[in-house]
Amino acid sequence: MKFSFKNDYSEGCHPRILEALVQTNLIPQNGYGDDEFCHSAERLIQEKIKSPQSKVFFVSGGTQANLIVISAFLRPHESVVAAETGHIFTNESGAIESTGHKVHGIITADGKITPDQIGHVLDVHQNKPHQVKQKLVYISNATEIGTVYTKEELRNLSDFCKENKLYLYMDGARLGNALMSENNDLTLEDIAKYTDAFYLGGTKNGALLGEAIIINNEKLQEEFGFHIKQKGAMLAKGRLLGIQFQELLKDDLYFDLGRHANLQAMKIKSAFQEIGCGFLSETFTNQIFPVLTQSQIAQLSEHFDFYVWKKIDEEKSAIRLITSWATTEEMTETFINSIKKLK
Amino acid sequence: MKFSFKNDYSEGCHPRILEALVQTNLIPQNGYGDDEFCHSAERLIQEKIKSPQSKVFFVSGGTQANLIVISAFLRPHESVVAAETGHIFTNESGAIESTGHKVHGIITADGKITPDQIGHVLDVHQNKPHQVKQKLVYISNATEIGTVYTKEELRNLSDFCKENKLYLYMDGARLGNALMSENNDLTLEDIAKYTDAFYLGGTKNGALLGEAIIINNEKLQEEFGFHIKQKGAMLAKGRLLGIQFQELLKDDLYFDLGRHANLQAMKIKSAFQEIGCGFLSETFTNQIFPVLTQSQIAQLSEHFDFYVWKKIDEEKSAIRLITSWATTEEMTETFINSIKKLK
Amino acid sequence: MKFSFKNDYSEGCHPRILEALVQTNLIPQNGYGDDEFCHSAERLIQEKIKSPQSKVFFVSGGTQANLIVISAFLRPHESVVAAETGHIFTNESGAIESTGHKVHGIITADGKITPDQIGHVLDVHQNKPHQVKQKLVYISNATEIGTVYTKEELRNLSDFCKENKLYLYMDGARLGNALMSENNDLTLEDIAKYTDAFYLGGTKNGALLGEAIIINNEKLQEEFGFHIKQKGAMLAKGRLLGIQFQELLKDDLYFDLGRHANLQAMKIKSAFQEIGCGFLSETFTNQIFPVLTQSQIAQLSEHFDFYVWKKIDEEKSAIRLITSWATTEEMTETFINSIKKLK
Amino acid sequence: MKFSFKNDYSEGCHPRILEALVQTNLIPQNGYGDDEFCHSAERLIQEKIKSPQSKVFFVSGGTQANLIVISAFLRPHESVVAAETGHIFTNESGAIESTGHKVHGIITADGKITPDQIGHVLDVHQNKPHQVKQKLVYISNATEIGTVYTKEELRNLSDFCKENKLYLYMDGARLGNALMSENNDLTLEDIAKYTDAFYLGGTKNGALLGEAIIINNEKLQEEFGFHIKQKGAMLAKGRLLGIQFQELLKDDLYFDLGRHANLQAMKIKSAFQEIGCGFLSETFTNQIFPVLTQSQIAQLSEHFDFYVWKKIDEEKSAIRLITSWATTEEMTETFINSIKKLK
Repeated sequence: MKFSFKNDYSEGCHPRILEALVQTNLIPQNGYGDDEFCHSAERLIQEKIKSPQSKVFFVSGGTQANLIVISAFLRPHESVVAAETGHIFTNESGAIESTGHKVHGIITADGKITPDQIGHVLDVHQNKPHQVKQKLVYISNATEIGTVYTKEELRNLSDFCKENKLYLYMDGARLGNALMSENNDLTLEDIAKYTDAFYLGGTKNGALLGEAIIINNEKLQEEFGFHIKQKGAMLAKGRLLGIQFQELLKDDLYFDLGRHANLQAMKIKSAFQEIGCGFLSETFTNQIFPVLTQSQIAQLSEHFDFYVWKKIDEEKSAIRLITSWATTEEMTETFINSIKKLK
Repeated sequence: MKFSFKNDYSEGCHPRILEALVQTNLIPQNGYGDDEFCHSAERLIQEKIKSPQSKVFFVSGGTQANLIVISAFLRPHESVVAAETGHIFTNESGAIESTGHKVHGIITADGKITPDQIGHVLDVHQNKPHQVKQKLVYISNATEIGTVYTKEELRNLSDFCKENKLYLYMDGARLGNALMSENNDLTLEDIAKYTDAFYLGGTKNGALLGEAIIINNEKLQEEFGFHIKQKGAMLAKGRLLGIQFQELLKDDLYFDLGRHANLQAMKIKSAFQEIGCGFLSETFTNQIFPVLTQSQIAQLSEHFDFYVWKKIDEEKSAIRLITSWATTEEMTETFINSIKKLK
Repeated sequence: MKFSFKNDYSEGCHPRILEALVQTNLIPQNGYGDDEFCHSAERLIQEKIKSPQSKVFFVSGGTQANLIVISAFLRPHESVVAAETGHIFTNESGAIESTGHKVHGIITADGKITPDQIGHVLDVHQNKPHQVKQKLVYISNATEIGTVYTKEELRNLSDFCKENKLYLYMDGARLGNALMSENNDLTLEDIAKYTDAFYLGGTKNGALLGEAIIINNEKLQEEFGFHIKQKGAMLAKGRLLGIQFQELLKDDLYFDLGRHANLQAMKIKSAFQEIGCGFLSETFTNQIFPVLTQSQIAQLSEHFDFYVWKKIDEEKSAIRLITSWATTEEMTETFINSIKKLK
Repeated sequence: MKFSFKNDYSEGCHPRILEALVQTNLIPQNGYGDDEFCHSAERLIQEKIKSPQSKVFFVSGGTQANLIVISAFLRPHESVVAAETGHIFTNESGAIESTGHKVHGIITADGKITPDQIGHVLDVHQNKPHQVKQKLVYISNATEIGTVYTKEELRNLSDFCKENKLYLYMDGARLGNALMSENNDLTLEDIAKYTDAFYLGGTKNGALLGEAIIINNEKLQEEFGFHIKQKGAMLAKGRLLGIQFQELLKDDLYFDLGRHANLQAMKIKSAFQEIGCGFLSETFTNQIFPVLTQSQIAQLSEHFDFYVWKKIDEEKSAIRLITSWATTEEMTETFINSIKKLK
């Protein structure tokens, strides 16, 4: 079997999570998220983000989190602003529009959007009520192409959104990787402070499944459970989600797993840099996009699985490599050895 | 801690499922349901239902299964016919209507609907296009109040639906209990033959989570994956669902768990019958609804958890007792002893 | 050609409306409802309802008014309570559900709903968030079967709704007939006071088309124009609606037309009473439902058009007769003569 | 009062239409579009487009036509491709998304889209089912910026759509202007042949209101009336739409009105060309976009109403001038005289 760098959800979950499931398995609990594990995980999150008034809701996946949050927050005539690389814009099969809301796409260089770009969207939608009303800004951190927001960038977005009565929502499918990135200066506390809501991703950071939706804006917390139920996202055994987040957050496991994944990616990045290889974008998380010749790609493909991401020219393409909590030092070393042998 | 007869999803999952998760944990797989476990579980189901052309899709929960199936099958102007006790009618927070479709409720004695009742709904909606067009019949088996359909009843419904160009869809959240009921004469093969689609419930029969949607009508299988994705129900680690159904179905575990739960309920039912107690409805699955005096209810409440279901008169109420794969013989015996002591 | 008593929208419009259209035809106006006629008609309505803070919005038809109001007022998890005879429940092809909201149907004797009946719906939906949340009560006045609400009934509904944080919305497709009914004691001022919103019907009371949505609850007025536009209901030439309501309301034309229609129906009702005929329900508006033998129905059918409404037994059926602003005295007299000749 | 060139819906309707309404006013008809005038207008359209199997449905406005057609044709996971200038993309307040469907925007030079551009959208959405499935191409003719499709362009689009199993739908809000444009080579027959559906606009070409939806693809005609009803677009007095289209189409009035509007715009265009003025885009319909200095704009604004459309630089802006059936020769001449006096 080839080692795989295709994505960060190829394996099951971190062994400690399985152990926690085994140990708690026969303890009866209330259903639908009203169990002691979910309550405990909520408290752990409130402490880590230093925001006791925030409310936490656990759901199974990222698309689910996004569509529930957005459809719960918006009235029918309100729309969303997102990067064109944003998961909701391009990779959720029209999930947001399916709940009735337009998503405006912004073309970006690095997957991150700026107040100026949002301002432009607002400017060209002044013909009310013939044009839809923008109400929520969706950002991803880390972005879908591996970049991260700085504290200043996030604060500026937050200020702009407040001035313009826009909600700011962060998709944190890979927030563990973002926060552990070497060029990150954000804390969970900052994120709770600057956003109306965000989600802390479990699926791509060691859980079997699960994302923790965290709503900081108290006005938006009201009756949120109805939306989870109505969209089919309320697990009868909500404990399954609570147990996992409790395990990930009761110490620093969540962050350790993000750091581990990033470290493997950075080692591989260095190896590519050493042979003079360029990259599609500069990333410091668990995704890298080296630009290789077709022959180099063919050599690496013999022993490893990964996606060819984007054709650059007749000669070269960028590949995408993703590492995870499950990427072993052995995998990383083996891959680096292969890089060194590339012609 | 009191023994609980509140529901069949209070514990985690059957130990064999946890073992299977542990053993497969680090085997890398494709994401989004395209893994070897999902494929294997689909084959097992196709064999058990003797319908190789059926397609199987795994999702997390029952409300999710129902809303995806119904919104994928119907055009915007089409509606659903269901019992007023039906889960979609009363307990899914408007999930079906949220996808745009009206649900017509039929008042029933026992949770089951008949061709005549559906025919009446059709008859009073002949003023086209001012009245919505009925297109899908939703039934639950076992029903939400513990009853089951006979083969003849299901065949009659199927014939009626075919004649009237209606789809027939069965919610099988408790299909394991239904099939193992002492007064059941249906097989999985029958159900695949008589319905356009149904789902085989995992959550309430020993899984951590998971329902297997089985689409028998080939015309309705087309592009179904899009709907799963769009509604936020496609797990990145779809393996989690595949592994569980593989484990439940590779031998008779799924059916053994249903039989075990039913057996506990029937023992308790007998004990109530022996003291001359009546029931709200006659059930042969894992739900029973004995009618007790307030004093009797108070006595049982001291040591056991259960729901008071329906007030009968000033004196009496019906309680609901649910057993599951996790109900031990000890729990059952202890409860029966308490019944015997009721005044 | 037979005289028709099938409905109150068989002809074009009252001649004064056509004259107003002719006279204003070439005066240029702003589009989309921002014209002097709509503004003037809004002021006339505000005066007549003695509620200057109410806002008025003109749309083309009743189903349109209902779906826009309801989808604008409700959040996704909220539902509507209505009579089973209510237009939105049975005759709008699932329009309300199409915007995502469940409609609970109440079985009534006379098309009118009471606080007790609504209270029962609330009582059986206490299992939050598994059951949908009721938020709006929909009533029709006159009802779809010709009855009207008294002031006391409406005040009681209003009080109940306020106590239970429900919006009260009245469908006034035939409000002109209701207000001119001999057993009416409501005024437009009362209706503005007791409802959060209502619409004043034009189509069935002499206009070519058009309903005036009147929102009394200021919180619900906000950004309402977006919803009109988004649902495709904002006419480029909104003037068409403004001119008609201006003409209907600048004097008492609107009420005269309602009174005229009612009067014709009451004359016909008396004629039936004189020959000892019974009625399906007791009505005092422009709809009557006499119960006739098949032979009597056949006799009347020779010279008049009307709907056979409901089979009573093998011998008899109720027919529905509707009069309108366009029903002439000649038509009424001719019909009465035929009644007198019935065996 | 200033002469207005702001839009083509400032006045009521062509006098012949009012006459037709007066003459037919008291003839009783069936409701909801089942009247002799709608039937007659449908036959006239079938003849003019030489497509007897096409079905015609009349609705009140363009946004309404677009949202009904698109939501009726598509399944939930299917999306629309349109120009970013397209009415549905930018000026319908999210109406299409409100019915659940994503609209992909294509940046164009002239408001027209090409097979290559659509092909690119398809190419970047191959990751099924994570990306939404494109199913309908929306074009406008004339476009929102006054340009028209040639026969070759439309045929190529049609061929491409057939090859890729896409529906082709044309928004004909200004189809009268398009067909009467001096550089048009399309006929109604061509349009019926090359599109699955289109609508023939009445509101902007002399009617009080009304658009004729024409469905050529027989598979898409089925049960279309339900969608009209459900979206609140079925007028009780459908006759109002039928009478107008009958009048516009029983001879060449519809085309005469389009030709008249175009002619006035072309005369004004020539006057601008004579003084050496440039244009934002080259148009041959009833919209022109001359680029003027701020001082020139100020001069014209003293006596005429129009929109300043787009700032070109500090010195200059493009204005938008729209003519219509109601633009008199006197208005045109007066405006041309003012152009000649511009410095």
